Amino acid sequence: ASALPNRYLDEEGELSPLSEQEEESKGSDDDIRVVNGKEIQRKGVETKPFITNPRAVEKCTRYVDTDLNRAFTTENLSAPSGDDLPYEVQRAQQINEIFGPKGSPEAYDVIFDLHNTTSNMGCTLILESSKDHFNLQMMHYIKKAIAPDSCPVLLTEHPLLKYSTSRSVAKHPIGLEVGPQPQGVLRSNIFESMRVVLKHALDFIELFNEGLEFPPCTVDVFRVSEKIDYPRDTNGNIIAMVHPNLQDCDWEPLNPGDPMFQMFDGTTLRYEDVETKLEKCKSNLKTLQQALSE
Amino acid sequence: ASALPNRYLDEEGELSPLSEQEEESKGSDDDIRVVNGKEIQRKGVETKPFITNPRAVEKCTRYVDTDLNRAFTTENLSAPSGDDLPYEVQRAQQINEIFGPKGSPEAYDVIFDLHNTTSNMGCTLILESSKDHFNLQMMHYIKKAIAPDSCPVLLTEHPLLKYSTSRSVAKHPIGLEVGPQPQGVLRSNIFESMRVVLKHALDFIELFNEGLEFPPCTVDVFRVSEKIDYPRDTNGNIIAMVHPNLQDCDWEPLNPGDPMFQMFDGTTLRYEDVETKLEKCKSNLKTLQQALSE
Ligand SMILES: [Zn+2]
Ligand SMILES: [Zn+2]
Repeated sequence: ASALPNRYLDEEGELSPLSEQEEESKGSDDDIRVVNGKEIQRKGVETKPFITNPRAVEKCTRYVDTDLNRAFTTENLSAPSGDDLPYEVQRAQQINEIFGPKGSPEAYDVIFDLHNTTSNMGCTLILESSKDHFNLQMMHYIKKAIAPDSCPVLLTEHPLLKYSTSRSVAKHPIGLEVGPQPQGVLRSNIFESMRVVLKHALDFIELFNEGLEFPPCTVDVFRVSEKIDYPRDTNGNIIAMVHPNLQDCDWEPLNPGDPMFQMFDGTTLRYEDVETKLEKCKSNLKTLQQALSE
Repeated sequence: ASALPNRYLDEEGELSPLSEQEEESKGSDDDIRVVNGKEIQRKGVETKPFITNPRAVEKCTRYVDTDLNRAFTTENLSAPSGDDLPYEVQRAQQINEIFGPKGSPEAYDVIFDLHNTTSNMGCTLILESSKDHFNLQMMHYIKKAIAPDSCPVLLTEHPLLKYSTSRSVAKHPIGLEVGPQPQGVLRSNIFESMRVVLKHALDFIELFNEGLEFPPCTVDVFRVSEKIDYPRDTNGNIIAMVHPNLQDCDWEPLNPGDPMFQMFDGTTLRYEDVETKLEKCKSNLKTLQQALSE
């Protein structure tokens, strides 16, 4: 399934103009160009390529009004529909109609939610529930198929840090996050890695539908344990960068005492003392700001 | 000069919310937070940190209405000002008023135009004229000062491919392009490399103003010779990616016969035959599209 990029950024980071065809199909939801449909066809499997947020794609941003990938709450999905709703909430309702309803027997079996990110996440599968045996088997199959290349699994099951994704409309929601690849950029190696994972995922579904039995398996997963915000000043402004030792080290252990952030003056904040040092920095900065405003 | 990032993208690529202070200063042009003013102070040099396109920064895009870095044409700068002009044209006029007028004796001596890019350009100085001896001396000074680190110089002097940059308002316009670093992301190594180049640039100006004499020098530069667009189908849609062998190889030679683009089916387009193969691909694609629509 090759959804071709409509826009690109030139060397200067400028967004390429829309082609005539794109101008015409602007805002339409069917702007997916499948170059070779065969690639996503499998015996006994119905597949539907789909762009979840065409207006954001058009603008080369994550979203227009509100984050679509947080919008699939019961509240939003059951809200009276109308043009006054944020675009992404309207879109969530449409997607729920096409692929859902969420939680119902009529919902699609699988949604493979294809994302890219500026983080160095490689090719990461995202699993929403440790009880989803179908997905666990699929991920096990994919990991084996692409070895020695790696494909980490991130389990987002968490009492507080979980959110209502687009893919959650299907019975078996699977996220695939590839990176580093900024918005508006298509890197051949990243594209290829996504393509390969998708190929094996579809192969698995075909085999499953053919009745192949899969023996019990275990899958190593990363779990969300904690989220740490950037250091901020009293006004909420970010005042540090990811430390060079930590930058791009996705999926590597971060131990107490390891460098985590770097302040703009070069000071290092470490994992164990982010909180305490931050308090000190804030008060230093406040003093500095006062001194400057005098 | 540390202009702190106001926004950032989280792991999911989501733009961080504006802080309260940011909400208040939204749209104002003075939203630069200089952490340590001393860093840009030099004896006998007046420096003014400035965000050229605050609305674009706020939205985390390159521009709002039109590319500011192409907007400094005589036509735009002399147009009757008014709210009906595109935002960036209004902004170009303001910048011309503050730092110009372009081409006049009152214009600022130097504008150091700080950019980032998704391309692997490293730390590249951009020179607009091979006759600008002041800039050539400065670049020579910077290159020597940061060695063995490299700092390529790109000379954009070209009868057709030159454009009207923001920095062209000053007598000595200098661009500094650092990357790879997408919009909304601040990488400590990229930030540091920009900081170091800026430090040496300011040191040079201080020495120059003190009357230090600089002996004649030569500077190796890259020149713009040709621009090659992405391969596109008959509708203008991009149909290939940068070839993995060429990706990130900024400033390395591209010889006739070298792989340049990769089509989505894996086909390689080489430097010498991009044009001819492209014609063939287009007609193939047309046949395929016809076959699909039948
Ligand atoms: Zn630029
Ligand atoms: Zn994502």
